[in-house]
Amino acid sequence: MREKRKSGELRKIKITKGFINQPCASVLIEWGNTKVLCSATVEERVPPHVLGSGAGWVTAEYSMLPASTATRNQRDINKLKLSARSAEIQRLIGRSLRAAVDMKKLGERQITVDCDVLSADGGTRCASVTGGFIALALACKKLVADGVIEESPIINQVAAVSVGIVDGEVLCDLEYVEDSAAEVDMNVVMTDKGSFVELQGTGEHGVFADNELKKLISLAKAGLKKIFAMQKRVIEND
Amino acid sequence: MREKRKSGELRKIKITKGFINQPCASVLIEWGNTKVLCSATVEERVPPHVLGSGAGWVTAEYSMLPASTATRNQRDINKLKLSARSAEIQRLIGRSLRAAVDMKKLGERQITVDCDVLSADGGTRCASVTGGFIALALACKKLVADGVIEESPIINQVAAVSVGIVDGEVLCDLEYVEDSAAEVDMNVVMTDKGSFVELQGTGEHGVFADNELKKLISLAKAGLKKIFAMQKRVIEND
Amino acid sequence: MREKRKSGELRKIKITKGFINQPCASVLIEWGNTKVLCSATVEERVPPHVLGSGAGWVTAEYSMLPASTATRNQRDINKLKLSARSAEIQRLIGRSLRAAVDMKKLGERQITVDCDVLSADGGTRCASVTGGFIALALACKKLVADGVIEESPIINQVAAVSVGIVDGEVLCDLEYVEDSAAEVDMNVVMTDKGSFVELQGTGEHGVFADNELKKLISLAKAGLKKIFAMQKRVIEND
Amino acid sequence: MREKRKSGELRKIKITKGFINQPCASVLIEWGNTKVLCSATVEERVPPHVLGSGAGWVTAEYSMLPASTATRNQRDINKLKLSARSAEIQRLIGRSLRAAVDMKKLGERQITVDCDVLSADGGTRCASVTGGFIALALACKKLVADGVIEESPIINQVAAVSVGIVDGEVLCDLEYVEDSAAEVDMNVVMTDKGSFVELQGTGEHGVFADNELKKLISLAKAGLKKIFAMQKRVIEND
Amino acid sequence: MREKRKSGELRKIKITKGFINQPCASVLIEWGNTKVLCSATVEERVPPHVLGSGAGWVTAEYSMLPASTATRNQRDINKLKLSARSAEIQRLIGRSLRAAVDMKKLGERQITVDCDVLSADGGTRCASVTGGFIALALACKKLVADGVIEESPIINQVAAVSVGIVDGEVLCDLEYVEDSAAEVDMNVVMTDKGSFVELQGTGEHGVFADNELKKLISLAKAGLKKIFAMQKRVIEND
Amino acid sequence: MREKRKSGELRKIKITKGFINQPCASVLIEWGNTKVLCSATVEERVPPHVLGSGAGWVTAEYSMLPASTATRNQRDINKLKLSARSAEIQRLIGRSLRAAVDMKKLGERQITVDCDVLSADGGTRCASVTGGFIALALACKKLVADGVIEESPIINQVAAVSVGIVDGEVLCDLEYVEDSAAEVDMNVVMTDKGSFVELQGTGEHGVFADNELKKLISLAKAGLKKIFAMQKRVIEND
Repeated sequence: MREKRKSGELRKIKITKGFINQPCASVLIEWGNTKVLCSATVEERVPPHVLGSGAGWVTAEYSMLPASTATRNQRDINKLKLSARSAEIQRLIGRSLRAAVDMKKLGERQITVDCDVLSADGGTRCASVTGGFIALALACKKLVADGVIEESPIINQVAAVSVGIVDGEVLCDLEYVEDSAAEVDMNVVMTDKGSFVELQGTGEHGVFADNELKKLISLAKAGLKKIFAMQKRVIEND
Repeated sequence: MREKRKSGELRKIKITKGFINQPCASVLIEWGNTKVLCSATVEERVPPHVLGSGAGWVTAEYSMLPASTATRNQRDINKLKLSARSAEIQRLIGRSLRAAVDMKKLGERQITVDCDVLSADGGTRCASVTGGFIALALACKKLVADGVIEESPIINQVAAVSVGIVDGEVLCDLEYVEDSAAEVDMNVVMTDKGSFVELQGTGEHGVFADNELKKLISLAKAGLKKIFAMQKRVIEND
Repeated sequence: MREKRKSGELRKIKITKGFINQPCASVLIEWGNTKVLCSATVEERVPPHVLGSGAGWVTAEYSMLPASTATRNQRDINKLKLSARSAEIQRLIGRSLRAAVDMKKLGERQITVDCDVLSADGGTRCASVTGGFIALALACKKLVADGVIEESPIINQVAAVSVGIVDGEVLCDLEYVEDSAAEVDMNVVMTDKGSFVELQGTGEHGVFADNELKKLISLAKAGLKKIFAMQKRVIEND
Repeated sequence: MREKRKSGELRKIKITKGFINQPCASVLIEWGNTKVLCSATVEERVPPHVLGSGAGWVTAEYSMLPASTATRNQRDINKLKLSARSAEIQRLIGRSLRAAVDMKKLGERQITVDCDVLSADGGTRCASVTGGFIALALACKKLVADGVIEESPIINQVAAVSVGIVDGEVLCDLEYVEDSAAEVDMNVVMTDKGSFVELQGTGEHGVFADNELKKLISLAKAGLKKIFAMQKRVIEND
Repeated sequence: MREKRKSGELRKIKITKGFINQPCASVLIEWGNTKVLCSATVEERVPPHVLGSGAGWVTAEYSMLPASTATRNQRDINKLKLSARSAEIQRLIGRSLRAAVDMKKLGERQITVDCDVLSADGGTRCASVTGGFIALALACKKLVADGVIEESPIINQVAAVSVGIVDGEVLCDLEYVEDSAAEVDMNVVMTDKGSFVELQGTGEHGVFADNELKKLISLAKAGLKKIFAMQKRVIEND
Repeated sequence: MREKRKSGELRKIKITKGFINQPCASVLIEWGNTKVLCSATVEERVPPHVLGSGAGWVTAEYSMLPASTATRNQRDINKLKLSARSAEIQRLIGRSLRAAVDMKKLGERQITVDCDVLSADGGTRCASVTGGFIALALACKKLVADGVIEESPIINQVAAVSVGIVDGEVLCDLEYVEDSAAEVDMNVVMTDKGSFVELQGTGEHGVFADNELKKLISLAKAGLKKIFAMQKRVIEND
């Protein structure tokens, strides 16, 4: 555990753009010891529920490599079941990223954002949303540059951070040992304009009161401010 | 859609105890046109991660019957995949119900709460948490009555209600047509002592600001007050 | 076990029409402690083998809720396999119900009859055929009332009853404890005109002779007479 | 279709013992153009429900090779689902063969009878029961010869034949073209002492009356008489 | 194990044409105690990657019956997984057989060669390639005879043999006991013109040097010479 | 395609040790544009077939990330099937790596080498064997350093390279565009002492003669010489 860490302190975040070159855009996000490879692939097809509507779609998939965790976790395919945790997380990522996009401007095409966790040390879903947004934004820039669409469909920056209560103390950006000990764990997804996209607080090892909720949200907002600045820098220096 | 409904109005909730007689306890919860059969089964075994700890475990499963929705939905087994939505919801129900129980007092046994949606008209996850808690509490009463455990392990009442923003208006207990039109949709799980257990807000068709969050939570609390009273009545009149 | 029950005695059967309101027609059939929710859903599509023939199709699915049995049974999806017993039973229900329908009159549409066992105390397949027929007939009435088809495609009433030999005695309508102790177990599906649709006799814990077969069939016929009368009453009082 | 065939006529049945030499016993049964490889494997383990009871168990598996039918049928593993028809049939074979065995005399071991259809021309389930019984009996003889058990656990000969009504005429041993055209199709499994083990009649393309049932059973009995004589000859000449 | 066997000795190979009559062509290949049923089915459709190209496709499936091995092996469908070994082998068979065919001459149709191992005593993949080629060639002859295509698309004879190093000695055509003891195991697939199609050598229980590779290949070629002569005789005497 | 490349030229290989820190050892191998993350995890358990033998086991898993290829490939879990190609490749990697290890010296523990392809541009199986060996060797060094075993069980260096015939020309280390156009494609796995471990040559778009085999092997040996030197440097500089 980080020694003498400050309540609002974020771990170091490093973004490598174009880590792999097959998808439309990819970034490796390293957030402390957590590493997630986020790739955005554009396909000229849409799922049935938007077909013919003129609008596009954004979806996400999330998966952990077997060796990404302290104890090796078996591949989903060997159990023939998508991990329920992965299912829950990829739905969260998908909803979050869709809040960033004007689907009409995207046009009838789908962007799939794959978030593959290479190394897990807490905060993988927040790293996926944050890095996934960068990959998504870069892919949209490329679509504009390539003349596929006229104008970027990105309407908001979207990023996420975790906050929690550990030993009665409110902390931002929990790493794995903190997260497992947390009484309350909350993931906050926001836009750069300060609106909430997703708010998921859970008190499995405890419950939380109104004033704690207030503190958690305030800490998350402070952390996200720095994250939005970082995202902006990375995307604009493309 | 309910005409001229009031912002904080709840639909009618009806509980039938002992709807089926095989499990330790069962209730049929009818919440407007939503009907969920909640059953609590006690088994004298625990999952590996608590084995030997002296503590018990509570878990939940959630599933919709094919004819419960307006368009028939194919059974999971025919697709060979647990619906990702069901996976997400049953994890929420499980975490919520565990917040109600002192696992040490339960002892090394597992209670599985099955929430099978017979008819879906919005709010099925809140009906599952609310009805599931009643089944769980009744099962614990039975364990005490049967002399299996000395004291009930129930430490909190737990219930859930949905709130949302529809056409800019904050509403409590969304039915299906409201839910599909909602800009923001939030599920609030609380204890009868006023603490949060789970808070899941999502703004897929919009985002939400601080003051809206405040209003949503306040509305949810008002609704939950009535629901806790109803739960208490049902459990005590056993 | 029912004490001093008479050889030809049927348990009480109760039908609740419209138990859920999404499918075209639904009935809850309570047959002693057995409860099956039967829903008939109409879809404007047919399977490949009748496509383009002008004829429709009727199919059935059967499933037991996990808490419907004395020992909780795991969901099929958790084992990734349709229970072989369910597969066998839903094929029987499907064949039985198809004998009730003139497929040409139904036209190119499919009716799926879902039989979900909420509580199992013997005779679930017979309750499914008997209740499933009612749901099917009500759905056909609705299709006529809605002007979708001109004339009802129902050409026979179809119902089922179980008979068996327990401790050497021939009994009608076996409940679970009788069924598990039976030397011979037979399910008889007939039309209201007195013809056989399906006859499935099995002697796993014994074998049976010609004269026993005769007695079993005669007892089944007597039971079915009452069941046909009940079905007729329910369908006509719609 | 067989021209000018007589109502009670059986197709030619040929048995090749020891067609493969790995399992305890195997026979290739050729019944007209239907060919089924039946193997009996003995394993020194029993399923949980008889474990510790001192009794053994007999089970069966049934499968069709992809090229066994006129139109190639996809392998189950490619669809990730056991065919529902195979599930239904292997349950029938298992129940039938168990009626032949005194499980106490078999002792705590399991015999699995695999029935793999190499070529299908109607009557595959009857060929499986009939050939499967021979493999089972030969395996039991071998167990006695090898001193594993003292006395054969076989208490009945068990065989099966199909009968049906085609164009209003009652026929025994339907081949594929007859079977697909049959109004009524019945599989009769009996012991050599003249008792019924399984009786499965189905009238999907029609229904059947008491007198037809009587005729069908009488025809089946005549056919089975010849089949029992053949089985006996094969097993004794071992 | 074959006593005093010679290094280059092949086991006896017996081919039965038309063993089953549903597919376009079928052969039972008995190679020592190994028995594989090879069937070639022609379908008037092609997989997506050649659709519209005017060319056809040849593919293979390989599977072992449960009782084909000394210890009964569970069916793939019961494990819900295609055995990785079968996957590897059927890819090898498919590639090998495609080397025998001019896809343009075959035209837009697919030939599926099913290789089902009835009895396994080593060399099943080589028996599958060798017998599979005969089935494929006979199916092509039939397509020409039936006027479906003008000219046979067969451009090479293709056959396979295994060679290996057992106790330091180079042997051809390993049976099971030899194969399991082999330091090196190699499968050689060639055309009748002396070119290699597939060469798969593996030294799991040892490694092999250049001069051993040379000896193995030379032994394989000698064995294949006899096999090509046998294949030719069988196909021409059709 | 590399312009004016020389026949025996290798692409640049870069190894990053400790790319992720959860498994016992990990390397990122970048081979041209191909990137594979190889992790070696040690578990104190062995599979059933070596249990109690005192010997250990080495196994491998291979998988491609969805965005690693030019066209996004669907995850195995979404198709519920391990790709047959992956199955084939991971068996090859596992056999190759086992040739490097004295299982007795490893003792009753298992090392799983996960090879996850992040970016695919040809030669992923050779990169997996080559990088997988480094991860395996580093894990063994760590076991010795940690005092778990006394002496390293590594008895050979193992590496792989691909060779092929493209437009009639023999080339070493094929990248994707070359590989797809190759008449013959061969993967050569050797030890640093010059013995073959695996040799897999396939001529799907052509066949190959003896002299071509000779050239291919000679080219592979030259390439492997450089690769063994690189491996050695990386492992010793640990």
